[in-house]
Amino acid sequence: MGFRDKLNAAIKKNDSRVCIGLDPDPEKIPPCLKKNQLAILEFNKAIIEQTADIVCAYKPNMAFYEALGFSGIQALKNTIDMIPSDIPVILDAKRGDIGNTSARYAHEIFEIFGADATTLSPYMGFDSIEPFLKYQDRTSFVLCLTSNKGSVDFQKQKLKPDGKFLYEIVAQKCSEWNTSGNIGLVIGATDSDELRRIREICPDMILLIPGVGAQGGSLEKSVKYGLTPKGEIIINSSRDIIYASADADFAKKARQAAIKLRDEINRAII
Amino acid sequence: MGFRDKLNAAIKKNDSRVCIGLDPDPEKIPPCLKKNQLAILEFNKAIIEQTADIVCAYKPNMAFYEALGFSGIQALKNTIDMIPSDIPVILDAKRGDIGNTSARYAHEIFEIFGADATTLSPYMGFDSIEPFLKYQDRTSFVLCLTSNKGSVDFQKQKLKPDGKFLYEIVAQKCSEWNTSGNIGLVIGATDSDELRRIREICPDMILLIPGVGAQGGSLEKSVKYGLTPKGEIIINSSRDIIYASADADFAKKARQAAIKLRDEINRAII
Repeated sequence: MGFRDKLNAAIKKNDSRVCIGLDPDPEKIPPCLKKNQLAILEFNKAIIEQTADIVCAYKPNMAFYEALGFSGIQALKNTIDMIPSDIPVILDAKRGDIGNTSARYAHEIFEIFGADATTLSPYMGFDSIEPFLKYQDRTSFVLCLTSNKGSVDFQKQKLKPDGKFLYEIVAQKCSEWNTSGNIGLVIGATDSDELRRIREICPDMILLIPGVGAQGGSLEKSVKYGLTPKGEIIINSSRDIIYASADADFAKKARQAAIKLRDEINRAII
Repeated sequence: MGFRDKLNAAIKKNDSRVCIGLDPDPEKIPPCLKKNQLAILEFNKAIIEQTADIVCAYKPNMAFYEALGFSGIQALKNTIDMIPSDIPVILDAKRGDIGNTSARYAHEIFEIFGADATTLSPYMGFDSIEPFLKYQDRTSFVLCLTSNKGSVDFQKQKLKPDGKFLYEIVAQKCSEWNTSGNIGLVIGATDSDELRRIREICPDMILLIPGVGAQGGSLEKSVKYGLTPKGEIIINSSRDIIYASADADFAKKARQAAIKLRDEINRAII
């Protein structure tokens, strides 16, 4: 089953478009967990057990595992293996290199770690993305418009001749490259006009929307303008869910936070 | 000693501006090396032993190690430890994520692996690069104009209002952000006009130039227009050196290829 079918099945089964970012930071995980090499794995295990029936996907970000050295890489592999097989895994990597090098990253992400989807940086252009697209049953979410301050530096530069923004050109090129239907876009949940413009360019492409939460207020519009005609969207939340509590009840509080977000999204759909 | 001083000392000691890309591919390393988990380490060891007096830096690309799973990560760590301490290591990673995530990658690259420098993707803007810049004795080479076909997709888009290319804006922003003098640029060795434009924007910034070799002819101009006033430049070659032979003499042939490139660069300087 390809990523999109797996995602749709999870959306339906759990009535949820919530994705939880599994980004364990040893400084932030509850003190009650032993500060040993297995602590982040115990943390992830508890979060997954408490939320697997409320999400449509999990998104571990590789940085948080790589930063812990070998034991972190092992924990990432074990975390992915721990996720129920009917919940898709988006391995957040933001890679992008020349073709033969990107092919090695694609091998790592899709074959070594067995992820269903990943994230990519577009700066180096088509041949940096192509090796990922050859995995037709996986999906690659390309960075388009991010929600961090730095998005103004390049993504929001206006281009000649017609004044489109760089992020619109990224959306347009991704639309052209999407011959196998396995490209999605990463769009920060910041501005509904921007989201509308992207939807005009790519009406059917799945959007992965991080940055919901702290900003507040943007969720309703993100859902309204971000849904595909089939009703697909992936709303990611990391810190607001996994660090909802620093006490022994962290996993239960994570569940409550995930349910709250799921319900807010579902209310925005109706 | 910071990266730049270490680089200059290596340039002077070895009279070389050659950087060798240590990108071992199990499919391409000589059959005489055992196809075991240590094969790529043996391969790198032989290459380093035969070339450490002819280079100014080594550049392992993380993709080639990550794609081999745990043993690959271990081999990367061992490879970096094997490189003589007076030769700087540029860990080619092309990372870039939101601030708190980029900080984890910076920790991995500069602290876990102990690299002297790295490469970054600019797409997410300043706050995605800033955590790396806090390591003032390390250098971050930001992708500016790459030598692959895909560079036309975004890097060579013309911007409003004055028709500058995106890669020129990347160079300009990096110049503004370079308050600690620890940013460099990755520039494909393809076109001397482009190189001249970048040099006008960033007269003192060190350029890391991959893509010399297969293209041919561009080396002389890359050196002529790419040198800093202090005479710094890093010309990288990977496959043309490390796979110069597929036989038991691969390391000696790598040495010969590195000497040839070193001498060609030095002739272009005089």
